[in-house]
Amino acid sequence: MSSTISSTPQGFSAFITNLGIRDTTDDFVFIKSSVPCVADGVFTQSLFAGPSVTLSRDNLKDSQAQAIVVISKNANVANGAAGIADAQEVLQLVATETGIAAHNIAIASTGVIGRRYPIEKIRTGLLGLGKKLTDADFHAAARGIMTTDTVPKLVTRQIGNVKLVGIAKGVGMIEPNMATLLTFFFTDAAISANSLRSIFRSTIDKTFNCLSVDTDTSTSDSAVILANGLAGEVSESDFTIALQEVAQELVLKIARDAEGATKVIEVTVDSAINYAQAKKVAKAIVNSPLVKTAVYGADPNWGRVAMAIGKCEDEQEINPELVVISFDNVKVYPNSLTNENLEQLRQIMSKDQVKIHVSLNIGVGEASATVWGCDLSEGYIEINGKYST
Amino acid sequence: MSSTISSTPQGFSAFITNLGIRDTTDDFVFIKSSVPCVADGVFTQSLFAGPSVTLSRDNLKDSQAQAIVVISKNANVANGAAGIADAQEVLQLVATETGIAAHNIAIASTGVIGRRYPIEKIRTGLLGLGKKLTDADFHAAARGIMTTDTVPKLVTRQIGNVKLVGIAKGVGMIEPNMATLLTFFFTDAAISANSLRSIFRSTIDKTFNCLSVDTDTSTSDSAVILANGLAGEVSESDFTIALQEVAQELVLKIARDAEGATKVIEVTVDSAINYAQAKKVAKAIVNSPLVKTAVYGADPNWGRVAMAIGKCEDEQEINPELVVISFDNVKVYPNSLTNENLEQLRQIMSKDQVKIHVSLNIGVGEASATVWGCDLSEGYIEINGKYST
Repeated sequence: MSSTISSTPQGFSAFITNLGIRDTTDDFVFIKSSVPCVADGVFTQSLFAGPSVTLSRDNLKDSQAQAIVVISKNANVANGAAGIADAQEVLQLVATETGIAAHNIAIASTGVIGRRYPIEKIRTGLLGLGKKLTDADFHAAARGIMTTDTVPKLVTRQIGNVKLVGIAKGVGMIEPNMATLLTFFFTDAAISANSLRSIFRSTIDKTFNCLSVDTDTSTSDSAVILANGLAGEVSESDFTIALQEVAQELVLKIARDAEGATKVIEVTVDSAINYAQAKKVAKAIVNSPLVKTAVYGADPNWGRVAMAIGKCEDEQEINPELVVISFDNVKVYPNSLTNENLEQLRQIMSKDQVKIHVSLNIGVGEASATVWGCDLSEGYIEINGKYST
Repeated sequence: MSSTISSTPQGFSAFITNLGIRDTTDDFVFIKSSVPCVADGVFTQSLFAGPSVTLSRDNLKDSQAQAIVVISKNANVANGAAGIADAQEVLQLVATETGIAAHNIAIASTGVIGRRYPIEKIRTGLLGLGKKLTDADFHAAARGIMTTDTVPKLVTRQIGNVKLVGIAKGVGMIEPNMATLLTFFFTDAAISANSLRSIFRSTIDKTFNCLSVDTDTSTSDSAVILANGLAGEVSESDFTIALQEVAQELVLKIARDAEGATKVIEVTVDSAINYAQAKKVAKAIVNSPLVKTAVYGADPNWGRVAMAIGKCEDEQEINPELVVISFDNVKVYPNSLTNENLEQLRQIMSKDQVKIHVSLNIGVGEASATVWGCDLSEGYIEINGKYST
């Protein structure tokens, strides 16, 4: 079974530095495996997906990769042909310096949209990259991919000899759709491409794709996993559990560090017709600005939860008369708000993590979904009203 | 043609008062015509639609009505069978007092969800209603339907002898879907039920259904029009123009008074495949929290507009390479942000009304749509974080 002992998978080296992309903090992360890896990636569905996304999507099609490059503080999105050429040049520079073929390198980029890379600085900074590699410091990597994040996000697990580490960044523009912000997983497990793909996609779907900060989908969302096999085979079920735990913890770290967030909101919807319906209703609740501000104000305003369910007007199987709404385990609808439990509810709403539970009670419905988000405070306005072009 | 002379349609009387629903401001509005009216209504699609909505939907099915009752400060939503009985009792009390059949009266209600009417106060307050009617004061009516609105919203037009008045309320929980917040139109035009229905629905669709404050859809949205015919026939094209102007002005009044709003945002998307596509993209932009906060901060952050367009991932005809984004008439994407126009753009973004224009430039695309919304400020959080259950 998985354990939480801090652990670094074998065979990964890294070069993490500041190239002067925007400020003086680390903005360049290169991580390579000593041997080729089985790999997979899922990416934003945005129509304005950047060249990093399109290049990585191509490079991972064969389920193989040996390294990943991340540039933070500049997303290199919406820069036309020049932006595509810049991304290709970065890959080629890294390939030349390290001897790894460009098509075996994944690339990701995050930050402001519509500005070109300071390409001269990158050319200079990457000279001699191959000789600067040291044992991978994943904490430094988690820090190097940050933009406006206030804390680095890293989670590790050990499954027998196999080690797994996941890192992620993201605080806003977060409504992943079949993809996620930026998150990378490294393991020394030996696992087949088909198994890795199936386990990775189902994990991302139930974790990162269930996270929403502000309904805005990034143009740069990327999730990539590299498995180099150096620690030998692993029980697939144990590996699945460990990967889900790592992804789940990263999701909670992101929700907690979301722009302006003071509380995490967890919404579970059950007894739905199917998973898609449960998730749709749960997302409508966790994304409602009025629910988010009620949580911020610690107000057990279940009427806003009912309103949000009501927005799912295509789900005609839902009968409002059968719906039950609870905060934590205290039922509030129907007919359950009393002066007595109001104080108890205000306490529940004041917690760091507020749990909203909705039973649709559709006769034949047995599906459930859980999603995560955060409250909406003046902090979100402050950060995003002042973030300057 | 229509003119803007202040005018009151013939034959409408009213009783507007405080029944003590929540505070001491007017919370009861009754408006009747001296003769039966051709009428129409469109309502929220919310699954949690309140009994006022379901009763009015039934009562307007025959395109006939003679009066309307509005209770504000309490939505009477999610109160189960008791709430339905309360709404029916209100209609019956009014019918008994005025001699108008209950099925010829529309009812609307707005305010907090999940609280029952103080029905005893209503019973007492409505005694002798029939004898208390005076010539309709539509300004008082516009004030009587307010909840957290800061200003009453009323617009009038005159078309020859025919007069038209529209009133509306709404400051939050606004993402009308085939319906609207609360808005009522009264006219003395003589017009057929079919014409009125067609003109009214297309007007609401292009005005109120293009307005979004916070993506949250009210459980009480109702739009009703009563035409009593006392001023005789009207040119349908002139009447259509006048009705659209009235509805359009009401929409802008609502956007301007929206919770915490400091600016109105108008988004126009053109050269789309069809109206639905243009509206979908325009709504994605006007609803994006990151676009809204950029407008609040007067930042010409066109990257966030590109991001919002990118969210419409089902619209595969859209090619980011062909898209053109402008603020007012200043092009910002592609490649058009210079240090020179940055100051001009900041001035544009500082106006009371910020216009965002997107050309999709799809080869065969000739459709366009305009939608309205508002920026997102600390005021929205303040109002909705403190509004208490």
